[in-house]
Amino acid sequence: MNRSLFLNIRNHKVFQTFVIFAIILSAFLVGASTYNIPVQILYILHSLDALITIFFVIEISIRFFAEEKKLLFFKEGWNIFDTIIVLASIIPAGPNSSILVLRLLRIFRVLRLISAIPELKELIEALLKSIKRVFYVSLLLFIIIYVYASFGSILFAQSDPSRWGDLGISMITLVQVLTLSSWENVMLPMQELHWWAWIYFYSFVAIGSITILNLIIAVLVDVVANNKSKE
Amino acid sequence: MNRSLFLNIRNHKVFQTFVIFAIILSAFLVGASTYNIPVQILYILHSLDALITIFFVIEISIRFFAEEKKLLFFKEGWNIFDTIIVLASIIPAGPNSSILVLRLLRIFRVLRLISAIPELKELIEALLKSIKRVFYVSLLLFIIIYVYASFGSILFAQSDPSRWGDLGISMITLVQVLTLSSWENVMLPMQELHWWAWIYFYSFVAIGSITILNLIIAVLVDVVANNKSKE
Amino acid sequence: MNRSLFLNIRNHKVFQTFVIFAIILSAFLVGASTYNIPVQILYILHSLDALITIFFVIEISIRFFAEEKKLLFFKEGWNIFDTIIVLASIIPAGPNSSILVLRLLRIFRVLRLISAIPELKELIEALLKSIKRVFYVSLLLFIIIYVYASFGSILFAQSDPSRWGDLGISMITLVQVLTLSSWENVMLPMQELHWWAWIYFYSFVAIGSITILNLIIAVLVDVVANNKSKE
Amino acid sequence: MNRSLFLNIRNHKVFQTFVIFAIILSAFLVGASTYNIPVQILYILHSLDALITIFFVIEISIRFFAEEKKLLFFKEGWNIFDTIIVLASIIPAGPNSSILVLRLLRIFRVLRLISAIPELKELIEALLKSIKRVFYVSLLLFIIIYVYASFGSILFAQSDPSRWGDLGISMITLVQVLTLSSWENVMLPMQELHWWAWIYFYSFVAIGSITILNLIIAVLVDVVANNKSKE
Repeated sequence: MNRSLFLNIRNHKVFQTFVIFAIILSAFLVGASTYNIPVQILYILHSLDALITIFFVIEISIRFFAEEKKLLFFKEGWNIFDTIIVLASIIPAGPNSSILVLRLLRIFRVLRLISAIPELKELIEALLKSIKRVFYVSLLLFIIIYVYASFGSILFAQSDPSRWGDLGISMITLVQVLTLSSWENVMLPMQELHWWAWIYFYSFVAIGSITILNLIIAVLVDVVANNKSKE
Repeated sequence: MNRSLFLNIRNHKVFQTFVIFAIILSAFLVGASTYNIPVQILYILHSLDALITIFFVIEISIRFFAEEKKLLFFKEGWNIFDTIIVLASIIPAGPNSSILVLRLLRIFRVLRLISAIPELKELIEALLKSIKRVFYVSLLLFIIIYVYASFGSILFAQSDPSRWGDLGISMITLVQVLTLSSWENVMLPMQELHWWAWIYFYSFVAIGSITILNLIIAVLVDVVANNKSKE
Repeated sequence: MNRSLFLNIRNHKVFQTFVIFAIILSAFLVGASTYNIPVQILYILHSLDALITIFFVIEISIRFFAEEKKLLFFKEGWNIFDTIIVLASIIPAGPNSSILVLRLLRIFRVLRLISAIPELKELIEALLKSIKRVFYVSLLLFIIIYVYASFGSILFAQSDPSRWGDLGISMITLVQVLTLSSWENVMLPMQELHWWAWIYFYSFVAIGSITILNLIIAVLVDVVANNKSKE
Repeated sequence: MNRSLFLNIRNHKVFQTFVIFAIILSAFLVGASTYNIPVQILYILHSLDALITIFFVIEISIRFFAEEKKLLFFKEGWNIFDTIIVLASIIPAGPNSSILVLRLLRIFRVLRLISAIPELKELIEALLKSIKRVFYVSLLLFIIIYVYASFGSILFAQSDPSRWGDLGISMITLVQVLTLSSWENVMLPMQELHWWAWIYFYSFVAIGSITILNLIIAVLVDVVANNKSKE
């Protein structure tokens, strides 16, 4: 009897709309807190924030009690997602924990918009399906960057330590080169010192781009295959 | 009887060609007005502009009276599109309204080229068909940018207020990062202050790129599906 | 009889290989002439260049005389392509014509490599098949740039004349923005003056990107359709 | 009898896992050597490196002796790949050869991760299948860059020798333009000197982009065709 009441609330349109409204409001509060705000308004914002926190706890409870078998609630990924986000923002945080951590944890509540809108949930689920392929191509990309960064930090370290000083810095530099963002600023100084520098950079850009292209095509083929199997 | 005359004019090749010619001429006038022009020629341009305005009003009227049921005229989206553009450029604009607004409203007349060329109309209609998918992926992208901008404006605001001062500025900065345009200028100064900055930026670029890739594939799948259903 | 001799030469492997070799050599000569070269070697290069010119004339003649019906020779687009390129480089150029024009015309001979390698010919022919679709999407893109450049040159001309001075300069600036190349350098100064500048730039980038995406998908669908119809 | 022992070792899970572990360790050693490390730890690293080298020689030997027909071992591309990489890193290097070459050769060992993980091997094999198409489109791209670089070095050499001095420098500059990386810095100075410069750059970007687009679509069509023929 009790459960059917919770179930009715959970499935009610008004409740669902109200949840989305609360999430959007909490997103506005997060955004507003980054601006300089007069103290009086700040007080209102803090009160609203507390109210939303309480509402979220109630909402999760309703959804939990509406479930027939309580264990099934935590079998659904999105429920865990919501619960963790809500719990994280009510952590007492202890007397020593900084206000910064609290503010950061609040931001995650905006992500609940994804679990609240079915179309976005579907999008994310579709994305996760092609994650296996993405993983292996990303691993390949990582190996390529690692190898080139090793070469780079041995060959160029003395010429430009700020970009090629050690493996870590070299990898950051090579990710920039891979995104083709002002990469000529990285290459041209080396090209002036070593005539063969263009071979290093062009081969990296070519191999890296082909790998990324492969990633895109792999995802595309997966999505199309998923679409077909649905039909 | 009267209507069949209008219908004959509307469907006449010469009339249709003349309309396209008038739109192109009005586009040239808009372009010419951005250069420094001697006063005499300016006078000719203004006269031409007035003539085109009159012609457009006549043209819309002909197309309106050629329609059998007048209400159907406004059921066709492109007719409303044309009518609004023409009306906007003949708005009396009142004694106080600035010449700037008038000039801006004239520019929209160039867009009539789209409704005047059937192939472009088809293109736009095809684009609009995939708008629903685009909307949800764009919403997801907006949520991602919003969350990262919230983090950014809390974490980096003090280090570089010109880029991370508040949520609005942070979002503008992150759109730049998302387009990979000189994004190393945004990341490297933060990387020097916080060793973990690359995690923030790389995860944002990776998640953002995958979402955009999803957008592209969604549109592609829609277009291919539309093509197939036509056959 | 005579014709069959020419036909034999034209179809001979050695002849075809020699033609490709001559084209590559002429490409090297073009490249070499951009470096500072000692006078003696320059003399050799000029002689080689003359020899290649003569060889190309002979080669085109052989291919022309090998054709059964002479008129058919000029029905094949690639023959016209080759003939024009060869003719252009033997133009006497008159006593007044500059050496610059002659050098520029020589460069086109490198393009003959495309007509000499069947695989490249096929590639170009495949590209030309999707040219109609490309044309209309490019026209749409041009209209979009034109409209935004008109707005830009009216709204921003006084703030930054070097980028938004008139319609022509604005269009060049907007093409840069469309390629996302350091476009924040264009936007941020305007953003500081007008709070709404980001709407102008973001809408332009969004609409422009969607149009280019449409172009890519259109070409892709065409290529796939062509592939299927071949099977 | 002996062979079946080797075969058992080679196919044992523990052996395969240990190989991957050794490769990852050798990757860490390569990376660590780019940082400033205290001498004692450096000594440990060198010992580890020697151990890994020995282990790799043993591993390749096991895999060689496990093969039934020894000649078949070198028919498998990945075996040759592994053998060359291992041999290269045990080259005595002679008394005169620099430590630099030795360090560079060690880096290649990281690439063995590709041949050790079946999923990555498949990825590379799929990439190699579309290599023929990629070759011809790349050749076309090279011809386009060569022709434009020839024009560029004749037309712009005197205005900006650091970017257009000779064919080589021009080609490097044009690759930058093709990647759309701050290409306005290359174009705008020329645009100020020659009103027609935008035609040169825009046509290059348009033709180059279409060719690259063709490359992407060619690979995509190949991958999809391969997927279908598998089914």
